[in-house]
Amino acid sequence: MSLHITEVRVIVTCPGRNYVFVKVMTSEPGLYGVGDATLNGRELAVASALREHVAPLLVGRDPDRIEDTWQLLFRGTYWRGGPVLQTALAGVDLALWDIKGKRAGMPLHSLLGGKTRECALAYTHAAGRDFKEVEDQVRRAMERGFRAVRTQVAVPGSIGTYGTGGAGEAASAAWPSPDGEAMPFVEAGWDSSRYLRTVPRLFEHLRNTLGDEVELLHDVHERLSPIEACRLASDLEPYRLFFLEDPLRPEHSDSFRVLRRSSTTPIAMGELFTSKYECLPLITDQLIDYIRCDLGHIGGLTEARKIAAIADPFQVRTAWHGPGDIGPPTHAANVHLDCAIPNFGIQEMTFFSAAVNEVCPGAPTYRDGALWPSDAPGLGVDIDEEAAVRFPYKRGYLPIVRKADGSLHDW
Amino acid sequence: MSLHITEVRVIVTCPGRNYVFVKVMTSEPGLYGVGDATLNGRELAVASALREHVAPLLVGRDPDRIEDTWQLLFRGTYWRGGPVLQTALAGVDLALWDIKGKRAGMPLHSLLGGKTRECALAYTHAAGRDFKEVEDQVRRAMERGFRAVRTQVAVPGSIGTYGTGGAGEAASAAWPSPDGEAMPFVEAGWDSSRYLRTVPRLFEHLRNTLGDEVELLHDVHERLSPIEACRLASDLEPYRLFFLEDPLRPEHSDSFRVLRRSSTTPIAMGELFTSKYECLPLITDQLIDYIRCDLGHIGGLTEARKIAAIADPFQVRTAWHGPGDIGPPTHAANVHLDCAIPNFGIQEMTFFSAAVNEVCPGAPTYRDGALWPSDAPGLGVDIDEEAAVRFPYKRGYLPIVRKADGSLHDW
Amino acid sequence: MSLHITEVRVIVTCPGRNYVFVKVMTSEPGLYGVGDATLNGRELAVASALREHVAPLLVGRDPDRIEDTWQLLFRGTYWRGGPVLQTALAGVDLALWDIKGKRAGMPLHSLLGGKTRECALAYTHAAGRDFKEVEDQVRRAMERGFRAVRTQVAVPGSIGTYGTGGAGEAASAAWPSPDGEAMPFVEAGWDSSRYLRTVPRLFEHLRNTLGDEVELLHDVHERLSPIEACRLASDLEPYRLFFLEDPLRPEHSDSFRVLRRSSTTPIAMGELFTSKYECLPLITDQLIDYIRCDLGHIGGLTEARKIAAIADPFQVRTAWHGPGDIGPPTHAANVHLDCAIPNFGIQEMTFFSAAVNEVCPGAPTYRDGALWPSDAPGLGVDIDEEAAVRFPYKRGYLPIVRKADGSLHDW
Amino acid sequence: MSLHITEVRVIVTCPGRNYVFVKVMTSEPGLYGVGDATLNGRELAVASALREHVAPLLVGRDPDRIEDTWQLLFRGTYWRGGPVLQTALAGVDLALWDIKGKRAGMPLHSLLGGKTRECALAYTHAAGRDFKEVEDQVRRAMERGFRAVRTQVAVPGSIGTYGTGGAGEAASAAWPSPDGEAMPFVEAGWDSSRYLRTVPRLFEHLRNTLGDEVELLHDVHERLSPIEACRLASDLEPYRLFFLEDPLRPEHSDSFRVLRRSSTTPIAMGELFTSKYECLPLITDQLIDYIRCDLGHIGGLTEARKIAAIADPFQVRTAWHGPGDIGPPTHAANVHLDCAIPNFGIQEMTFFSAAVNEVCPGAPTYRDGALWPSDAPGLGVDIDEEAAVRFPYKRGYLPIVRKADGSLHDW
Repeated sequence: MSLHITEVRVIVTCPGRNYVFVKVMTSEPGLYGVGDATLNGRELAVASALREHVAPLLVGRDPDRIEDTWQLLFRGTYWRGGPVLQTALAGVDLALWDIKGKRAGMPLHSLLGGKTRECALAYTHAAGRDFKEVEDQVRRAMERGFRAVRTQVAVPGSIGTYGTGGAGEAASAAWPSPDGEAMPFVEAGWDSSRYLRTVPRLFEHLRNTLGDEVELLHDVHERLSPIEACRLASDLEPYRLFFLEDPLRPEHSDSFRVLRRSSTTPIAMGELFTSKYECLPLITDQLIDYIRCDLGHIGGLTEARKIAAIADPFQVRTAWHGPGDIGPPTHAANVHLDCAIPNFGIQEMTFFSAAVNEVCPGAPTYRDGALWPSDAPGLGVDIDEEAAVRFPYKRGYLPIVRKADGSLHDW
Repeated sequence: MSLHITEVRVIVTCPGRNYVFVKVMTSEPGLYGVGDATLNGRELAVASALREHVAPLLVGRDPDRIEDTWQLLFRGTYWRGGPVLQTALAGVDLALWDIKGKRAGMPLHSLLGGKTRECALAYTHAAGRDFKEVEDQVRRAMERGFRAVRTQVAVPGSIGTYGTGGAGEAASAAWPSPDGEAMPFVEAGWDSSRYLRTVPRLFEHLRNTLGDEVELLHDVHERLSPIEACRLASDLEPYRLFFLEDPLRPEHSDSFRVLRRSSTTPIAMGELFTSKYECLPLITDQLIDYIRCDLGHIGGLTEARKIAAIADPFQVRTAWHGPGDIGPPTHAANVHLDCAIPNFGIQEMTFFSAAVNEVCPGAPTYRDGALWPSDAPGLGVDIDEEAAVRFPYKRGYLPIVRKADGSLHDW
Repeated sequence: MSLHITEVRVIVTCPGRNYVFVKVMTSEPGLYGVGDATLNGRELAVASALREHVAPLLVGRDPDRIEDTWQLLFRGTYWRGGPVLQTALAGVDLALWDIKGKRAGMPLHSLLGGKTRECALAYTHAAGRDFKEVEDQVRRAMERGFRAVRTQVAVPGSIGTYGTGGAGEAASAAWPSPDGEAMPFVEAGWDSSRYLRTVPRLFEHLRNTLGDEVELLHDVHERLSPIEACRLASDLEPYRLFFLEDPLRPEHSDSFRVLRRSSTTPIAMGELFTSKYECLPLITDQLIDYIRCDLGHIGGLTEARKIAAIADPFQVRTAWHGPGDIGPPTHAANVHLDCAIPNFGIQEMTFFSAAVNEVCPGAPTYRDGALWPSDAPGLGVDIDEEAAVRFPYKRGYLPIVRKADGSLHDW
Repeated sequence: MSLHITEVRVIVTCPGRNYVFVKVMTSEPGLYGVGDATLNGRELAVASALREHVAPLLVGRDPDRIEDTWQLLFRGTYWRGGPVLQTALAGVDLALWDIKGKRAGMPLHSLLGGKTRECALAYTHAAGRDFKEVEDQVRRAMERGFRAVRTQVAVPGSIGTYGTGGAGEAASAAWPSPDGEAMPFVEAGWDSSRYLRTVPRLFEHLRNTLGDEVELLHDVHERLSPIEACRLASDLEPYRLFFLEDPLRPEHSDSFRVLRRSSTTPIAMGELFTSKYECLPLITDQLIDYIRCDLGHIGGLTEARKIAAIADPFQVRTAWHGPGDIGPPTHAANVHLDCAIPNFGIQEMTFFSAAVNEVCPGAPTYRDGALWPSDAPGLGVDIDEEAAVRFPYKRGYLPIVRKADGSLHDW
């Protein structure tokens, strides 16, 4: 019997954060592919989808047929799409590309058309309780070689503002408690007006103290209404952001038309999208400048490289999502793709802990403000299943946000 | 020194028709790639572009970097695009993909994501001087297994109507004579009104005699004005064409809006496009149903698979151009791509002569109404340079069309 | 036999830069026309197209039938358009107009409808490594009588920024070396952010030092993304540019909609277009203020005067491309057309070297900030074939641009 | 003193119909140009405009500067445009082009770019009181060689329907009488409903009796509302009109959007337009298929060739107005332009009486269903001023139309 898939292993592990890894085994001894199917806060649903529903469909199939497998798991599912299923699909997709690369003896950037650049310009995060703390963090990042830094600051009165090192970050803790939501992981007292007044002053401070050379980014994390986003984009114009990230909720593509007319601040969007279809109007109407899909949630390399191809003739560049809660296989896929496409923009990055690197070695290398792809065949990432066992899963949630009156807001 | 390009051979040959083949040699003994850079009627301009301008840019470069080479030859040329330069680029692109496939030990359909289908539904041509002759030709095609046939009929009063085996076909003959245009290859006396009255009656005849099962196509060859195309598409509605091909000139994307309102006849377009940018409005506004670019004139596999990716979410399917005046490497690339993408529609095909197969063996296999891709590494096509020498280039032109008043019309 | 074309001579010569000149000989003793078919970096592809494919079509034809010849070479080629074929066509078109003018005993401006103005307002270039050097150059230009000056400044960190006298200018040198691209003609380290910060400060400096009277222009050379172009046009508003030139790549007509909303800075576009069809949406939707086609690359006077006619009712004025790498026949055609149409805007100009003037005497005269057309019959330009032989062709390329990560950017 | 205009003669004459001819005399002995400034029913206003206002502006000017003179008389008039002034301008424009052609020793088609065709497909008129009479007239036209015939039939109850040989034709008779409108030249009892029922049956009759080969046209003469025009265009679809002429009033460009969606019947429009600006939306939005401006009312060759240039890339073809009430100079200009442009469609024509040919010899020759341009220098038309005197002007009016209730309708 010709080459076929023999087993799909799903590895749930928590080396600091929860990850769901995928290992697709084949009939050729020693030939397997690794993938990442982590969906923060809903990890076990994905693991269950993979183990109970997806794996039985794959055993016996030819791992060479990636596009067909992708179609089988997307269009062939009927009740298709959404983050759980697209994350499961992404895990499989990456593993199949890893297998193909190993069979070809080529790193994935070579399979995808070869290098268009040596490395991928990366941005890191700098956050703080006040402007000075943010400034100091940016300086530290610059000392590490970063030329682009995303900066967030605590909003007065809002406890644990996203990205500022508060509750939002410790997503793996045991929550909720039996007492309900009155616990540390609720970011309480959100007030958009205060946020809108604070952020432009942050960037005024940063430009005054850091100068113009460093590229600065800012993440709205989908918290604003259209007119609030217009206000912010306009107020930030003097500070020349590299981009303003995720200003609106993903359901509101049309609102980007309103936003687009307000300023020349570049706009990035997309980490919450789960298919290319959601990206289309933003791209074809040139409502954004950077498409920021998460390869791990949008169906893997197969979908992402199509999105890059669609975005290119509209001069939309890529800025794939790259936080700590997606695993090294996805980060590796990001950088392979970044270095193979013509319309790469920038790459969000994470420094993984020693524990993560032990479980899943081979994440892209950081050097001189950029990420460098592996030249090993395939993704260049592996899974140490024995190490993974030592870091058992812990239930955890991403934070939620409530306003002062107790009503729910977007995190 | 690592793997690099050492030579770009340009092989101009006329085994029945003129072809320009490309052979990219590398520093690894025995490793080379073959491509096709044939542009009917302007062959030597492409050969000169390749030999004098493109080849010196490629020697020394890494053949793995296909996308970067593509960008270098497109955007890096500054005065870019158009049929001559995009054909030259296509020839290089195919050869580089051939090299990559050989290095990977994989057929190109595998490199492109693996098979989504076993074979590509093909259509052949049936033409005749009258309805009965066309009908007989369709029957012969059906006996050979074809399930889809493009049919053309001579238009009364028009000498040598496109596709009907007259002057238009013998494109390699020595034209023009010293006496100017008064020669066999001018298709004289074109009259759109007669054509518009004739074609619906052809299809009425064919449906009456052949039934509904066989798929019928028709090629307008860009000869109609918008309102004439509306008329034809509307008149053909009862006969359920698979598609109506190239109804309007390539410069007139906006006219497809007019056409689109007139009927439910599916529309195909694109053999004269030389970049994805020309395809965009037709695709994103869903003004066509099939995109028919010529891989050999639009920059090769690199551009075509992007076009396929762009077309897919708009439900536009592919129908790559596949006539006899593009060589076996392009036909092979067509079928590799057809079998790897999800939104393949249909494939135009040619039966090559023994002479062409001798010079360039390895064209896709026809069987049961479909084309089957090679499973050899790379394209699966080779060039016999010694055989090529035995068929020297003969200057030839595609026909031109003039109306009864002597004015030029579109062939 | 009545008047007919007897020969088409193609003269490739390098009096400092490479030029491809065309000389169309007729059956009337002493009656011939001269044209220019120079395509920088792809000269020999054009020469081959002319010699091998176009010339045989022309011999025997009536030189009076310019429009029919134009149609024959455009629509009658089937695989039509693009820089190589449109440059070849332009060379023929100019030569045929030159013949017609000589037969009529009239300068071309007379044939085109007679003078609407005495001379064509011209702009020259001023570039420098820093603001002061640019300022000094502008002053020198003003001393020579120029009332309009295009200014470019080196961008810190970018080696050989376009228009600043660096690598980009010496386009005829022997590039690339056998070592690949690591050579002087790669403009390395391009950074759009730095450029966007630098240019507005240049114009602030120039307006502060030179005042408001002199007209200032700036060429983006298609290097920006849509939102970057918005930013620049907006930031330059206080400095009242005559126009901002070629802000976006030619493939991106729709992006001009985004740009148009951002500022009142006049926009010019078009040197990379090769047909009127590319100009249409920019003109009919009034997305630009000046159309800047290159007569030598868009098919000559026949196409350009139609473009002027199309642009006029939309209040788009002309600013035909006029750099040193198109030859004196095209410059002469520019000025004849400028002085005959109602919607002339401004004319880019070049001072030709003695060597060029020796090979091709008769370029338009510069005086008092303007170019003055010849009143000799036809174009007023001639070709000295013997002198041309003394300056043999040297292969050369236009520069390419790469960003710090090695990826290709637009020159 | 160099060549200049010395006199503008205005010749009003009625060799069967009223004509206003223009003769522009120059300082060169024997060099003059002729033009036509006839505006049916308002002839003396044009003559007065020419004699009293335009002529004094022209004396002393260089006749070579046609475009500048055109701009002077259009934009330089301030209260510009409209039929009186544009007809006066057309008369001057034609005369200046005639002078330029004579100076060049070239027929105008040569000056305009040379022949693109040998002759201009012409249509004549066939009208009758009933279907049979129309049929007989078409047959007679076909016997004279016509391949295209415009047909009109009397509408029952409507006295003197346009184009049917009734009152409308004898436009030079002495009307109105002192008694007011109750006279022969009122077309009384117009009823659009009857018209809409009659015309499709006419064409059903004609196709049944004459077959499909002859091209049939029909002139609505701007008498319908948008929805009525939709109905007619749709009802006429089976009879394959060459075009449906002037379906809507010239003020209602937007109504063509409604019409355009209703059928595939080709639409022609334009004889009442007096500037290119009125043509623009119909052309750029492809709402018509043929542009039918009257060279004599739209400002002459200078404006018409721009309109042709604008129409071409939108695939709109020309069908210049050519009735008996514009004079031979305009007919000559029509055919020169028809034979020089690429997008000629069809030419309306008139057989001039012996009297007209005596006064104004040189109208284009009819032969084999087409008009053939003169090869004499300039227009090829002359004015016999002595003959003109023998046919003095007679006041006359075009008809008016009233409905049964006495209300005014469009003629």
